[in-house]
Amino acid sequence: MISLANVYHVVTTTVPLYVTMILAYVSLKWFKIFTQEQCSGINKFVAKFSIPLLSFQVISSNNLYKMSLKLMYADFIQKILAFVLLTAIVKISGKGGLKWIITGFSLSTLPNTLILGIPLLKAMYKDEAVVLLAQIVFLQSMIWYNLLLFLYEFDAAKNILSAPPSQSTGGESETSTSETELKREEDGEQVETKRKMKIFPILVTVGKKLIRNPNTFASLIGIIWSSIHFRWGLHMPQVVNHSIELLANGGLGMAMFSLGLFMASQSSIIACGARNTMVAIGLKVVVGPALMALASIVIGLRNTLFKVAVVQAALPQGIVPFVFAKEYNVHPSILSTAILLGMLIALPVELAFYFLLAL
Amino acid sequence: MISLANVYHVVTTTVPLYVTMILAYVSLKWFKIFTQEQCSGINKFVAKFSIPLLSFQVISSNNLYKMSLKLMYADFIQKILAFVLLTAIVKISGKGGLKWIITGFSLSTLPNTLILGIPLLKAMYKDEAVVLLAQIVFLQSMIWYNLLLFLYEFDAAKNILSAPPSQSTGGESETSTSETELKREEDGEQVETKRKMKIFPILVTVGKKLIRNPNTFASLIGIIWSSIHFRWGLHMPQVVNHSIELLANGGLGMAMFSLGLFMASQSSIIACGARNTMVAIGLKVVVGPALMALASIVIGLRNTLFKVAVVQAALPQGIVPFVFAKEYNVHPSILSTAILLGMLIALPVELAFYFLLAL
Repeated sequence: MISLANVYHVVTTTVPLYVTMILAYVSLKWFKIFTQEQCSGINKFVAKFSIPLLSFQVISSNNLYKMSLKLMYADFIQKILAFVLLTAIVKISGKGGLKWIITGFSLSTLPNTLILGIPLLKAMYKDEAVVLLAQIVFLQSMIWYNLLLFLYEFDAAKNILSAPPSQSTGGESETSTSETELKREEDGEQVETKRKMKIFPILVTVGKKLIRNPNTFASLIGIIWSSIHFRWGLHMPQVVNHSIELLANGGLGMAMFSLGLFMASQSSIIACGARNTMVAIGLKVVVGPALMALASIVIGLRNTLFKVAVVQAALPQGIVPFVFAKEYNVHPSILSTAILLGMLIALPVELAFYFLLAL
Repeated sequence: MISLANVYHVVTTTVPLYVTMILAYVSLKWFKIFTQEQCSGINKFVAKFSIPLLSFQVISSNNLYKMSLKLMYADFIQKILAFVLLTAIVKISGKGGLKWIITGFSLSTLPNTLILGIPLLKAMYKDEAVVLLAQIVFLQSMIWYNLLLFLYEFDAAKNILSAPPSQSTGGESETSTSETELKREEDGEQVETKRKMKIFPILVTVGKKLIRNPNTFASLIGIIWSSIHFRWGLHMPQVVNHSIELLANGGLGMAMFSLGLFMASQSSIIACGARNTMVAIGLKVVVGPALMALASIVIGLRNTLFKVAVVQAALPQGIVPFVFAKEYNVHPSILSTAILLGMLIALPVELAFYFLLAL
């Protein structure tokens, strides 16, 4: 059962995140303290320093050798289910295409685990939740964001390239994306369009983008350090530790501040029309958690593990997929609505899931 | 005696501050990650949110009813000694004027207590140092910065206004600056220039600037909260506390990052020529601590109190006086040199004082 003290604890932990966001919103929207360019300076700082350092802290403190395989399987199955379901809907309805599959995939399976999820679920399920979420953050950074980037590049290439003979076998050996995913991708491609495409240049572009992304770096160094630390019991020198903490400590606050600036810079909270908003919120709050619950039941997750898996799936839309969507101009307004509206309804939605799962 | 473990502790606490600063320096100077306007966004965030929240945290956690009166007296006497000494030098040499007195006053008596002083001296003299430095930060925010602002405005007015009859009596009643200081100011004015000036419009301008300064606000609210908290044992609601912590926790890191950006944006670390640099560093590292030591001996400070008073006086130039100097264009290059060179030599200089005082 959930006591009132628990709910109070969740609220006192979450409300400050909103206060910070609102502070940023008000200072930009009403007082116009920052220009657009100045905001982008703060956002860049957050994207290049705060978030990567936060990722590193979370991933490096996660014991690589004690990861919950069941959670990882459930995470994979949720993603596959979402992909299959979305492909089926697009095919049956005959509307939309790869663009809609990508956007639906982001909405239903890639929530804001790092920034909002960890403090919120820590307040609900204590430190156990942090350990589990760290694994989900790790999978997001190392696999799903990269797959997403690949899909965006694939879609962009589809629109540009003509249909020369495939070079996919040469590319596959050089990629970090697993062969099965590529295969699936290709199958999808053959059924949708029947055209062979240049996989190799797409992979090179994806690779280049990943190398330039500090978050990929931070996740990779985090996992390397975790594997060293938890195998040999090595500790980082105090001075390195303190240096990372000095900037990472403010990361959460800065990230929320940056979210608030983003909110204020949008012309409207609902930027994509009522119908798309309904679909987006439905995918986010109903389909995502339902698929995760299904996957968790299939794999046999129990108790806190099950609860954390489902509650995190209902978190608001993550920021990284929005950044990609904006870059490739694939429904950015839908993802921004999912972030903004998602943030506004996050606390009641999450508390509702929390209560439901405690019954 | 100082053990090697102590020195190690000081180094591991201080080096991360430099790492953060160097990170900012490198990312701007070499990689050009931020544009000038984006930097000013980050600086504005630091000036309007990070630093005021840090000030608030430090001042509100300082027990108003257990302030060291001796330290406050010593602080006042150091400032008066500096003022008298600088005025004498300017008069005897016949060179310079009020501008030089102001700059010399900043250099010799207004160090970077909040950002660099607290972590550094905490590592040296434990939590006792934090309590004492909080009081110095409080005096800086509430009295000395305001006096400095008054002096800059006075100097600016001196250059603009003609010599109408004085209205000073009307102004004095409305000011927070103490009457003796005004009197001293006026005496100085009568000896230097023999002209009566409009004090009232200067005070209005100073007042307007203070009202718009979030740091003054934060200090004032901090002292009010301290007086309530330590009198009646009232506690802030958790949610307010967490909200402040969320942004203030990153304040130190952000402030150092902003310092690094500032360093990188200057064309040269020594911007004011070799002679002025020597004078600035002499005032900072020799005159300031010597006057503080003299004042402390006069008042009878002993042990840690004496050591903290002297070591903090040797800290690099504070940022706020530089911001004022830039705004009024009164030797900004000298103050920027004192900040940059001061930061570079701070660790060895502070360790030297630390060792000397431990003998």
